[in-house]
Amino acid sequence: MHKPAISQVPLNETIAQRWSGRAYAAEQPISPMQMTALMEAARWAPSCFGDQPWRFIVWNKASDSVAWQSAFDCLSEGNQAWVKDAPVLFLLCADSLFRHNQQPNRWAQYDCGAAAENLCLQATSMGLMAHQLGGFAADLAREKFNVPSQYTLMSMISVGYAAALDTLSPEVLAREQADRSRLPLDGLFFSNHWG
Amino acid sequence: MHKPAISQVPLNETIAQRWSGRAYAAEQPISPMQMTALMEAARWAPSCFGDQPWRFIVWNKASDSVAWQSAFDCLSEGNQAWVKDAPVLFLLCADSLFRHNQQPNRWAQYDCGAAAENLCLQATSMGLMAHQLGGFAADLAREKFNVPSQYTLMSMISVGYAAALDTLSPEVLAREQADRSRLPLDGLFFSNHWG
Repeated sequence: MHKPAISQVPLNETIAQRWSGRAYAAEQPISPMQMTALMEAARWAPSCFGDQPWRFIVWNKASDSVAWQSAFDCLSEGNQAWVKDAPVLFLLCADSLFRHNQQPNRWAQYDCGAAAENLCLQATSMGLMAHQLGGFAADLAREKFNVPSQYTLMSMISVGYAAALDTLSPEVLAREQADRSRLPLDGLFFSNHWG
Repeated sequence: MHKPAISQVPLNETIAQRWSGRAYAAEQPISPMQMTALMEAARWAPSCFGDQPWRFIVWNKASDSVAWQSAFDCLSEGNQAWVKDAPVLFLLCADSLFRHNQQPNRWAQYDCGAAAENLCLQATSMGLMAHQLGGFAADLAREKFNVPSQYTLMSMISVGYAAALDTLSPEVLAREQADRSRLPLDGLFFSNHWG
């Protein structure tokens, strides 16, 4: 499905096409090459001092459905309803300390956001659909998957192919086809000083 | 200059080409259409609850060099040395509270990182070079530009055309041509559980 961003001027095609859909094709796994590309895209994000504070845990239903289920079980009920058909899940954790001096890194979460966006855009450019999720039990996931306390659990990310429209129920179809919207530019960008 | 990411598989061209260079062409301003595209790209980033917690202040040397200088003066000395030729500066601030309920938004900085990455990628895809900077006097900038306390000053971003290689001193040329590097994939991505 194409739901391009509505912008005053043409945008980079991948940025315009990226969209957080929810209807995944259950029977279409992601290839090993696609998995590598998703990871490489995140890896090459920029970061403060080149710290690269992003750490990901990856679950692939096609290679280990029991492990995938264990990650899935951390999601909120509302998210589980649609993530169920996504073949791949990521958990993204932010290293709260700089590697070079073990001092607090105030850009760690910010930089993780960039890595996640790269992953989502890479997914879009390969015809996949990625969707970031904040609705998961972070404490439970930390305990289950042994995430050290130095790392902050930021998001889970589902990736897969979008389901064909003619397989969707009317409710899901309406949700997937709903308009996208954003605040107007002049509410987000100020010239020379605030406001 | 092309310094593409070194990856095991081909990446989205824009993600591969994005690179935080420092040598800007002083005499090449950014067009109004390019400015709009940079802002639209950031605007269409994803965010938790669609909150869009990013707010940017923009300075364009071509339209107001005094205001641009005021922003430039907030940068650390080390950054000033190379940012001096960048025609456009942004300051990115994260709204610490959700718009819908005024509760703390733990994804605000993370989402701002995505918006900044979109802006940088849009720059790359238009032949421009963007570079995010953490080295600036946030308290001074907050005071100068009246940023409300609810917003966290995350980064400044310089954007412009890269300078032609034959205009660079040997030191700057060496810096611009130095290899890019990242941690290996298996240090950043784990399968099924941490480590």
